[in-house]
Amino acid sequence: MSAPNSVLEHIDAQLDSSVTHLFELLRIRSISTDPAFKADCRKAAEWLVEDLKSIGFDASVRDTPGHPMVVAHHGGPSENAPHVLFYGHYDVQPVDPLGLWVDPPFEPKIKEVDGQKVITGRGSSDDKGQLMTFVEACRAFKAVEGCLPCRVTILFEGEEESGSPSLVPFLKENAEELKSDCALVCDTNMWDTDTPAISAGLRGLLGEEIIIKAADRDLHSGYFGGVAANPIHILSKILADLHDDKGRVTINGFYDGVKETPEEILESWKALGRTDEDFLGAIGLSKPSGEEGRSALELAWARPTAEVNGITGGYTGEGFKTVIAAEASAKVSFRLVGDQDPHAIRRNFRAFVEDRVPEDCSVEFKEHGASPGIQLPYDSELLNKAKDVLSEEWPKPAVMIGMGGSIPVVGDFQTLLGMDSLLVGFAQSDDRIHSPNEKYNLKSFHKGQRSWARILAALG
Amino acid sequence: MSAPNSVLEHIDAQLDSSVTHLFELLRIRSISTDPAFKADCRKAAEWLVEDLKSIGFDASVRDTPGHPMVVAHHGGPSENAPHVLFYGHYDVQPVDPLGLWVDPPFEPKIKEVDGQKVITGRGSSDDKGQLMTFVEACRAFKAVEGCLPCRVTILFEGEEESGSPSLVPFLKENAEELKSDCALVCDTNMWDTDTPAISAGLRGLLGEEIIIKAADRDLHSGYFGGVAANPIHILSKILADLHDDKGRVTINGFYDGVKETPEEILESWKALGRTDEDFLGAIGLSKPSGEEGRSALELAWARPTAEVNGITGGYTGEGFKTVIAAEASAKVSFRLVGDQDPHAIRRNFRAFVEDRVPEDCSVEFKEHGASPGIQLPYDSELLNKAKDVLSEEWPKPAVMIGMGGSIPVVGDFQTLLGMDSLLVGFAQSDDRIHSPNEKYNLKSFHKGQRSWARILAALG
Repeated sequence: MSAPNSVLEHIDAQLDSSVTHLFELLRIRSISTDPAFKADCRKAAEWLVEDLKSIGFDASVRDTPGHPMVVAHHGGPSENAPHVLFYGHYDVQPVDPLGLWVDPPFEPKIKEVDGQKVITGRGSSDDKGQLMTFVEACRAFKAVEGCLPCRVTILFEGEEESGSPSLVPFLKENAEELKSDCALVCDTNMWDTDTPAISAGLRGLLGEEIIIKAADRDLHSGYFGGVAANPIHILSKILADLHDDKGRVTINGFYDGVKETPEEILESWKALGRTDEDFLGAIGLSKPSGEEGRSALELAWARPTAEVNGITGGYTGEGFKTVIAAEASAKVSFRLVGDQDPHAIRRNFRAFVEDRVPEDCSVEFKEHGASPGIQLPYDSELLNKAKDVLSEEWPKPAVMIGMGGSIPVVGDFQTLLGMDSLLVGFAQSDDRIHSPNEKYNLKSFHKGQRSWARILAALG
Repeated sequence: MSAPNSVLEHIDAQLDSSVTHLFELLRIRSISTDPAFKADCRKAAEWLVEDLKSIGFDASVRDTPGHPMVVAHHGGPSENAPHVLFYGHYDVQPVDPLGLWVDPPFEPKIKEVDGQKVITGRGSSDDKGQLMTFVEACRAFKAVEGCLPCRVTILFEGEEESGSPSLVPFLKENAEELKSDCALVCDTNMWDTDTPAISAGLRGLLGEEIIIKAADRDLHSGYFGGVAANPIHILSKILADLHDDKGRVTINGFYDGVKETPEEILESWKALGRTDEDFLGAIGLSKPSGEEGRSALELAWARPTAEVNGITGGYTGEGFKTVIAAEASAKVSFRLVGDQDPHAIRRNFRAFVEDRVPEDCSVEFKEHGASPGIQLPYDSELLNKAKDVLSEEWPKPAVMIGMGGSIPVVGDFQTLLGMDSLLVGFAQSDDRIHSPNEKYNLKSFHKGQRSWARILAALG
């Protein structure tokens, strides 16, 4: 079914009221990483529980070893109606440096910036404003129809900005209660102010650290230069070998499980009009450095990578020291897509490194996490239903994009609860999340509510 | 001529007296790098001037902007007699950590260690003990013969342990006064306690720092991984390319001016019996890493190198950060031999690097010194006269070796005064110079005096 006009009109009529509601939540200083705000985090959870109860949810604050979760359930039109889990987080980033805020971070207001109305304040975009778009859509359905078009479970986390230490244990302990047909996650951006975006793929992440050890002490390069193994040379060779001259990663089996992106999706990305020069010009570069013959957007959204994130060895201070270091190390991460197996890649990477370490030297490895990529089929019903109704709401049709980075909760939903996630969000790239002067466009807040009403109806 | 037995016998008879003399000098705390010991440095210079005057030298303390020089002249048997310049330094290293000294560093004594008599104290080996071997040889000639076998100029520096800032200006200003037929430098080691060594070659040193710059800021590897140029990758590729798979340096023209070491010299090095396993086993390695098919000794003494002495880029702290750095840098040094031109190599290295930097990235270079290698012809008269008389003095024949490191004053003598240097010293590798419990073998001090007497006679 499509969303009744009466629900959409109710949303329009109640916009001021929904803003007032959001402001109450924004005034709560729920900074999760700073213990000084522990009580504020609980207060935000309690506020959400009360608000959800007022719409008829069976809502409760659920304790964890850290900040509490909010879990709420609402029935649908029937016991067998489709069941969705909505995820958001009520905690926010710290506000330092406070002096750079034009308006106080916890005193939200609406103001006009660059010709558009925005809601100011910490959390306005990330993620309180976004999660309230969903709550308001539910409120409108309840007010107009008396019920929701599907069964809805809500999970609000209070530790997303501080590493989500309680999330996985909580999902495991409450798997039966939380498991739904799919998850809805509202923590992402639109493509631009007129174009909604659905993130169909998220790259996974594998982190490795390698420490090459040669002589049993630092050496004088006068006495030992040209004779003793230099671990920086060995490391440089390994890192240089990671890519061939076409920019492809050379580790054995690295591309196993990587699928080509469908031609029509590539065409739709091309149609977005963001050229390689646009993408790279913004950071002072001009030419994609990865696999040859692919656009910057494809490389960032749909291709796996090997990147060295840090390297150190020998003397790195001012001036010069003629030393041959005893060891040198690098941190290397891999972005993974499709069905690439992070554990197989870790094994093959280590073999790749070991093959290149001379017999009288050694290598030590450290693990830094391993999560697979996530890719919904571009022809999935979930994605396409959402795409259709988002395209009705916004001036331009919705686009299915990829995300270069990871959203761990999406992987956890898949791994622990067997659920796909629909990633739809209404933030803009200039929302300054995590920075001073965070804002959320009033248009995002308004049409976001309407968008969720349409999506709930479509899934119902 | 060879040294008269009467002179050698006088040295033997006066050994106790020469030790007493040395102890006076060792008691002076002439630590050049610490301003607190400025007066002590001058005191050491003045002590040397008085001592040299007592042997008939025309000696004086010569002021510099730093610690003073000592310059002294003595005529030879005739006005046209060969003229040698002897160089040494009266300044010493600091003594920290004081708690590790078994005997106080400035209270020299003779004690028996591991079955041999040694002189203890800071400067006993580096370089007061060594320079006094020459002074005592002169004293003996004067006592027995009434004159020296050649014209002798002495230059003692007081800033060798703190970078010799005054040396080059002083050599330039006093070039006419100091210029001699050759220089004698006593600041090196013997091969072992029975085998004297002459250093015929010193590797030069070229230092370069390269800073690769890519994007105009640090990037998130989720958003930009696989698209944006990674300066650590570019740097790794450059450094990996520096050597081919035979261990040869690949910079254009790098081996121009490098001569092969004569076969008989290589044979003599082989005869020393220090295998690659000996050389490398001492530092926990087993296989030479440089140019294939050459021994560790040849690689260290006679072959040029490219070594990365330091590298840094991106995140190098604990844990992991998915960053693509804006820049990465490395310090690279080249040890040079024969007629390699450091300036040409600098130019060619920079071209080599620039060729490997993508168009939208850049590289910045910093200079860290450039000095050519020094190589006396193995068939030079100076070397061979010294070799013959040293072989008469010591239980085993003298060997001509190379030195992997640099002694800047030798380059300065060549460049500024047009003089070759004869590098002969009687220190041992276990003398702990620059460390607590420095010592000088009494046998080195005694036979060192006899050695110089023989060399002076041979050159006269």
